[in-house]
Amino acid sequence: MDQPSATTATTTFDPVDFETDPTRYRHFRVAYDGSVATVTMDVDPNACIRPGYELKLNSYDLGVDIELADIVRRMRFEHPEVRVVVITSGNERVFCAGANINMLGSSSHAWKVNFCKFTNETRCEIEDATEHSGQIYVAACNGTTAGGGYELALACKEIYLQDDGNSAVSLPEVPLLGVLPGTGGLTRLTDKRKVRRDLADVFCTTAEGVRGKKAVKWRLVDAVFPRSKFDEKVRERAKALAEAAAEGLPGGTRRPVELPPLAPEVTEKSRTYRHVTLTWDDEARLAHLTVRGPTRDDVAVLEKGGDALLDAGADLWALRAFRELDDALLHLRLNHMNVGLVLVRAEGDAQTIVDHDTALAKNRDHWFGREVILHMARVLRRYDNTSRSFFAMGDAGTAFAGCLFELALGADRFYLLDDPDHPVKVALSELSFGALPMHHGMTRLAAHFHGEPDKLEALAGDTSPKDPEEADEAGLVTVLLDDIDWEDDTRVAIEERLSLSPDALTGMEQNLRFPGPETMESKIYARLSAWQNWIFIRPNATGPQGALSLYGRPERPQFDWQRV
Amino acid sequence: MDQPSATTATTTFDPVDFETDPTRYRHFRVAYDGSVATVTMDVDPNACIRPGYELKLNSYDLGVDIELADIVRRMRFEHPEVRVVVITSGNERVFCAGANINMLGSSSHAWKVNFCKFTNETRCEIEDATEHSGQIYVAACNGTTAGGGYELALACKEIYLQDDGNSAVSLPEVPLLGVLPGTGGLTRLTDKRKVRRDLADVFCTTAEGVRGKKAVKWRLVDAVFPRSKFDEKVRERAKALAEAAAEGLPGGTRRPVELPPLAPEVTEKSRTYRHVTLTWDDEARLAHLTVRGPTRDDVAVLEKGGDALLDAGADLWALRAFRELDDALLHLRLNHMNVGLVLVRAEGDAQTIVDHDTALAKNRDHWFGREVILHMARVLRRYDNTSRSFFAMGDAGTAFAGCLFELALGADRFYLLDDPDHPVKVALSELSFGALPMHHGMTRLAAHFHGEPDKLEALAGDTSPKDPEEADEAGLVTVLLDDIDWEDDTRVAIEERLSLSPDALTGMEQNLRFPGPETMESKIYARLSAWQNWIFIRPNATGPQGALSLYGRPERPQFDWQRV
Repeated sequence: MDQPSATTATTTFDPVDFETDPTRYRHFRVAYDGSVATVTMDVDPNACIRPGYELKLNSYDLGVDIELADIVRRMRFEHPEVRVVVITSGNERVFCAGANINMLGSSSHAWKVNFCKFTNETRCEIEDATEHSGQIYVAACNGTTAGGGYELALACKEIYLQDDGNSAVSLPEVPLLGVLPGTGGLTRLTDKRKVRRDLADVFCTTAEGVRGKKAVKWRLVDAVFPRSKFDEKVRERAKALAEAAAEGLPGGTRRPVELPPLAPEVTEKSRTYRHVTLTWDDEARLAHLTVRGPTRDDVAVLEKGGDALLDAGADLWALRAFRELDDALLHLRLNHMNVGLVLVRAEGDAQTIVDHDTALAKNRDHWFGREVILHMARVLRRYDNTSRSFFAMGDAGTAFAGCLFELALGADRFYLLDDPDHPVKVALSELSFGALPMHHGMTRLAAHFHGEPDKLEALAGDTSPKDPEEADEAGLVTVLLDDIDWEDDTRVAIEERLSLSPDALTGMEQNLRFPGPETMESKIYARLSAWQNWIFIRPNATGPQGALSLYGRPERPQFDWQRV
Repeated sequence: MDQPSATTATTTFDPVDFETDPTRYRHFRVAYDGSVATVTMDVDPNACIRPGYELKLNSYDLGVDIELADIVRRMRFEHPEVRVVVITSGNERVFCAGANINMLGSSSHAWKVNFCKFTNETRCEIEDATEHSGQIYVAACNGTTAGGGYELALACKEIYLQDDGNSAVSLPEVPLLGVLPGTGGLTRLTDKRKVRRDLADVFCTTAEGVRGKKAVKWRLVDAVFPRSKFDEKVRERAKALAEAAAEGLPGGTRRPVELPPLAPEVTEKSRTYRHVTLTWDDEARLAHLTVRGPTRDDVAVLEKGGDALLDAGADLWALRAFRELDDALLHLRLNHMNVGLVLVRAEGDAQTIVDHDTALAKNRDHWFGREVILHMARVLRRYDNTSRSFFAMGDAGTAFAGCLFELALGADRFYLLDDPDHPVKVALSELSFGALPMHHGMTRLAAHFHGEPDKLEALAGDTSPKDPEEADEAGLVTVLLDDIDWEDDTRVAIEERLSLSPDALTGMEQNLRFPGPETMESKIYARLSAWQNWIFIRPNATGPQGALSLYGRPERPQFDWQRV
């Protein structure tokens, strides 16, 4: 199979840029009509993020999905008046044909896995907007809706399908490609749309899909409308949804907050943003990620509240810092695949961060304050979901407090320095107790204390900055070290971590990070993605005779029939 | 790497026999002392189930685990007086070193996955006995307790470790082998013992493990006792637990029920048991599994109740039929790996099965009646967890009713014949509504109607046998076919299913079969096993330079450092 090897994939190509803006879109048009926005997908077949394939039939690659993610994010900040977002197609016959198969077939395993993770996160963002921001996404499937196309529709609250004797929804991955509908498809079928599992089995093995009334009966779509009335019916429905969604929303002037480019200073070894610095050593496979906390001025803005937040806009520390963190994480994931361990530092003053979080939480009934918190939560979930080892390093000058203490709780370990000459503090804040949930629904603090409810209880509402010993006593620290031991002990821990199998670590972290319950969202990343990743390296899919490799060619796949 | 290829693994070796009995044990001794049984693991290094390795240091292979599973099962039926089962070691220095590494390193992927699944099921049986049968398992770790050895201990309710300055518990899979503690280890650490996730990270990356007081503090074990007092302390604790466990148990004379060999008639194409027949065509990759329902006489025994059940003993239909089904499923899994699709038939009379289940349910407060039902539930969970496509075929002569209707609900599809000349019936029974839960805690009926609570509600308590149309109307049927369509439509469906990628089907079925919630048990098979299976085929573990392949050799593993 003529796919780039794992190693060349990281070195041959330019780094992927995850920032974009409407002036640069190649694949989408967005139209605004009061409270209804219409996102029209019309993929430019030649504007691929990597060479070697064409994006025919509204199929997508990572570049297309980066635009979609940008649209979803900007919608919340730049178009707060929007209540319903209709996703539809500008293609004559196809709503969306899903992930481009030639792209998948020619990608390295690591690229496929990272691509799928990013697209999954974007679809979870769509659901987050629908559920928490009163921006309801609906899919107007005005043509063939196949594979990842239907999975995109599944991420929307409602799905309307054109009833034209031809347009069907389908998940043809299993019968045609020998892989799974891995962008949430299987999980959303059973857990969101609650399609009966035996009918889901028939649906997922029927390449041509299901259309018309049967699609409604099987709960695959919410309604079908004839072609002649499709646009009108969708408009009607969108309007009705928009009216209903307008109730009970948080207050505040709905003045747009524009998101300017982050414009970090980039060198061969670093990306330096205003509040975040990422440095890496690809050779040593080690990166440093530092987030600098808010100042007293940042707190003051939040304490004024309301319009003062809007005046600060994208410069608001909590928005800017977490946008930067998000971008840094994405760069780390895809452009520095050999980095295995990230040392995380949070700098600043603990009390200031706690006060910042208190003031921000007071603005949660302002639409913008709420959006900022929701955004922080999403970025932190991206952090939990990043397949790198994270050690939070609480050495001199750090302040793991409040929203930044989440970086320690989300890390695999938290090392803390206990040195009277360099006192550091650790603190919880109002945001520690529910505002920033993980994918599986728990707070990081509750996940941390899954087995010690008494310790969790003891900390309830306690936002006082703690000395290292006190923090350790409370159970918040993995390893407390004095200044004599710090250097040697952390050096050994880092060396040891870097010596371990990267695959075993990925699997281990994916299990240990999520104790307790699962949600639909966490099932997508665990049950579904783990099985998909397995299939992605099975010869039956990606071997020279595998179904994914041979798709579109005259040869038929040759399977090893053994059931594992 | 000199491992047997996937294909030769099924053809070179004799079929695995999953039946054994105490006279044939090579690896365990069991001693009974009133309400306390002691299971001493003392593995015979040379009694391997496959050639090519030695079972040193109380390490295990499938053959060892088949004995353990037999012990656990017989304990419930043949030793109903036992309240506490102490698992300990007959080896001087080692409690148990886990799965044999040379065995793992030399096994095909399919063998590894099947081996792990079976061992996982045995550990879940241990927990099932502890939770539901008042037979509490405790681990007396009188030596090194490593990897699968500690995972065996984790399956026990309590873990006691010898405090001798040497004996440690450890999960060295990640640092030494580049694979996961996949027999429930990671999941039970965080979800059962609720070890703090950051401490679990340290523990799982520390090859030498943790011992003494720290093991207690980290919740890895329940107590440590000095070597000189270990046996005495364990005995004391076991006695105390046994006394506490004696309360609130179901009644009935605790007369043992011996489990004789099933002694099926075996040919090259079939295994014919008293109530079950399995036939296979390895070439066509198709098997037929038929279960014959109870007779009126079987019902009469249950209606007499109490001692009449004990008189019937292992001949009781519900026990015998499900033991046979269990054995057939295990043979199918490991000895017929190329079989992709199983056509399942339940024969008998629907009303008789319903009456059978009603009468059996009336005996659920008798210890033996309860054990029979618990056993049925475990076998059905093995069915859910079998990576083959199952089509339940309700054609002429079938009666998918009550406990046997679970085979249709658990199948991927249920085809039902609607032919007045060959009337068939479908029925729920008292056992449909909670007695036979799936791994993830739902009944199969509730999982089936996950999205249609009204239909579930409408069927509550309804045990009347239904005509095909009525069953279809109620939502119980995937495809209803008249006699004109039956042959062609099912033939096409079978051909289609057999043409699909076996890996994609495994992944798809593992997702669609378990809608809704997850439990610790289902997380072990989904999140943990799926990641482990992925790692098992990554070159970093099983490639020529992989850590598992090179274990025990002088060379160090060569990793592809890319994080996926």
